[in-house]
Amino acid sequence: MTQTPLDYTAAGVDYSKIDPLKILAQKAAAATAGNLHARGVSEIPASRGESAYVMDVGGVLIASITECLGTKALVADAVRPISGKTHYDSIAQDTIAMAVNDLITVGATPLSIHAYWSAGGSEWFADETRMTDLVTGWQRACDVCHVSWGGGETPALAGVVEAGRIDLAASSVGIIPSRDRLTLGDKLGVGDAIVLLASSGIHANGVSLARKLVERLPEGYATKIADGRSYGEALLDPTTLYVPVTEALFAAGIVPHYSANVTGHGWRKIMRHAKELTYRFHTLPDVPPVLSFIQQHAAIDDREAYGSLNMGAGFAFFVAAEQADEVVRIAHEQGVAAWNAGVVESGPKQVVIEPLQLTFAADELHLRA
Amino acid sequence: MTQTPLDYTAAGVDYSKIDPLKILAQKAAAATAGNLHARGVSEIPASRGESAYVMDVGGVLIASITECLGTKALVADAVRPISGKTHYDSIAQDTIAMAVNDLITVGATPLSIHAYWSAGGSEWFADETRMTDLVTGWQRACDVCHVSWGGGETPALAGVVEAGRIDLAASSVGIIPSRDRLTLGDKLGVGDAIVLLASSGIHANGVSLARKLVERLPEGYATKIADGRSYGEALLDPTTLYVPVTEALFAAGIVPHYSANVTGHGWRKIMRHAKELTYRFHTLPDVPPVLSFIQQHAAIDDREAYGSLNMGAGFAFFVAAEQADEVVRIAHEQGVAAWNAGVVESGPKQVVIEPLQLTFAADELHLRA
Repeated sequence: MTQTPLDYTAAGVDYSKIDPLKILAQKAAAATAGNLHARGVSEIPASRGESAYVMDVGGVLIASITECLGTKALVADAVRPISGKTHYDSIAQDTIAMAVNDLITVGATPLSIHAYWSAGGSEWFADETRMTDLVTGWQRACDVCHVSWGGGETPALAGVVEAGRIDLAASSVGIIPSRDRLTLGDKLGVGDAIVLLASSGIHANGVSLARKLVERLPEGYATKIADGRSYGEALLDPTTLYVPVTEALFAAGIVPHYSANVTGHGWRKIMRHAKELTYRFHTLPDVPPVLSFIQQHAAIDDREAYGSLNMGAGFAFFVAAEQADEVVRIAHEQGVAAWNAGVVESGPKQVVIEPLQLTFAADELHLRA
Repeated sequence: MTQTPLDYTAAGVDYSKIDPLKILAQKAAAATAGNLHARGVSEIPASRGESAYVMDVGGVLIASITECLGTKALVADAVRPISGKTHYDSIAQDTIAMAVNDLITVGATPLSIHAYWSAGGSEWFADETRMTDLVTGWQRACDVCHVSWGGGETPALAGVVEAGRIDLAASSVGIIPSRDRLTLGDKLGVGDAIVLLASSGIHANGVSLARKLVERLPEGYATKIADGRSYGEALLDPTTLYVPVTEALFAAGIVPHYSANVTGHGWRKIMRHAKELTYRFHTLPDVPPVLSFIQQHAAIDDREAYGSLNMGAGFAFFVAAEQADEVVRIAHEQGVAAWNAGVVESGPKQVVIEPLQLTFAADELHLRA
């Protein structure tokens, strides 16, 4: 490869500009916690900065989250003329996965979903095929997760959302039936095993990079990847819904010490908990062909690839070492490949990927104020 | 006035294209209710089609909602060069009001808010003044409502959201402490009084029309309205937060039979409940000068004005007749003007505004499948 590597800034996402706002907003948000006292409610402080927010309402722990799809719908729009399919059934699943896969990290059972479908104009909703696919896929994903689709909002926002486009997001509410199901990391510690769950492909993170890459491919989204499918269709494999796995774990009496949904920042997300710990991997999951293709054609090294894409690991459980094999078995029973892939060690906060001789230091991830 | 009246289709919002999707989505959503049984949870079926969704989780009633601001941020962007202010503190309050003012209609006490701030690019977040105003206004609105800002999502979505723009939405979770606080309209009936709460201005509905009107004004947003302020600044008066009023009612032991947040479809929203009832008004609230200005300069008649704008009525309570004056008094105590403005009668489903000799028939509102 003689090409210049693609990176996120080249692909239009500059985290240095977003993160100061995140920190400002996080501080202001934290300052509102006391408002709940007037209602006889309290927050679970350790949930601030985690992937979902948890309140204690008279002993019932309520978790909530709002998450967006990102730019993956642009891929569906571009691939439709090639594949003859709208792919919005997959896009719907991606959007729901962004919400529920975050919600379950705190130990919650998702109960309801609200849809946020914000289109660039009323005409977006007049395409019956696409509209039906979106509704059908949304319903099916709700069924897989056993959640109720409680409502939503479908505005037409010409001038805010681009003409012909749609901004998709989902919010979800769940419950944690008892305090010992809360997985905010207080039990996370040295000796824990790290079980990785397979991703189905790119999921919905790294999509800006994946779209940027198309400009370099002579056949664009129609370019064949190693498994013989087109790049576009492979990108559109819907994000795995991990709710059946967490529910099966709970049913078996297994509560992870901590969980991480591997999204933006790729494997750097593994060290998202505030504790000072080293996460050492001895085993790597299989890399989906579409991610190998991206790494190769975007000419990015392992540091860039594992630091921004999931590279086959869609979700991580940190569990008691003696439960790791059982967690792997239960995931397989739910149709999700899994690997007992690493261990938590004492040491500086970092992610060490031994097979690749790669280390991400703590200062390469800035999620908290 | 010799000008052609402006209407919603001319202003870019065509409800005939949105509503078929809403109906398809509502049917699919209703079909997912049974998913909750596996979790030992049930929905409150009467909350479907209402402004917020309610689940019964072991006797705790949890209400949830996702709502969007719409296009009002475009007004702030256009007015900033004139006023020298970003107005995003007001815009933040508008966004939160869209969510909590809906949530309270079912009898809920809002507890938490999630922010959804989806920008057209990372550079949106680099404007420190605007960013600080947005965060400050968001926090202040949370404080007024005594809710906790639990988290949020701040994506940069170039290609989905227009460059330089932001798609703002909020989701909220609340609780209803007992079943007799549920206000889904089962007690709504003949003889109830209708108490209207004052709006602060346009709130966040009818904004497309208001923006379209600017093209007709020689001085645009800088045009002075009757109260001496500029049209742009008056449009940006933030939406009233009605949470303090509902909480004061509950504290006084008053539970409305039903509530309606007057948003899109203006006064037609008054008849949103499924029951066959006539809503007759004998008294009109004061019309905010900015709404009179819109009606006059857009050359729209009362039917169009009251059928799409709030015209001074931001929220409606349907209460036992003998409680109406007390409701008015309590609202005033919370700084919100209110009028005992109408009565619920037997008869065809319609809204009758006697002082204007105006009637909206049921077929002029299609919200439900």
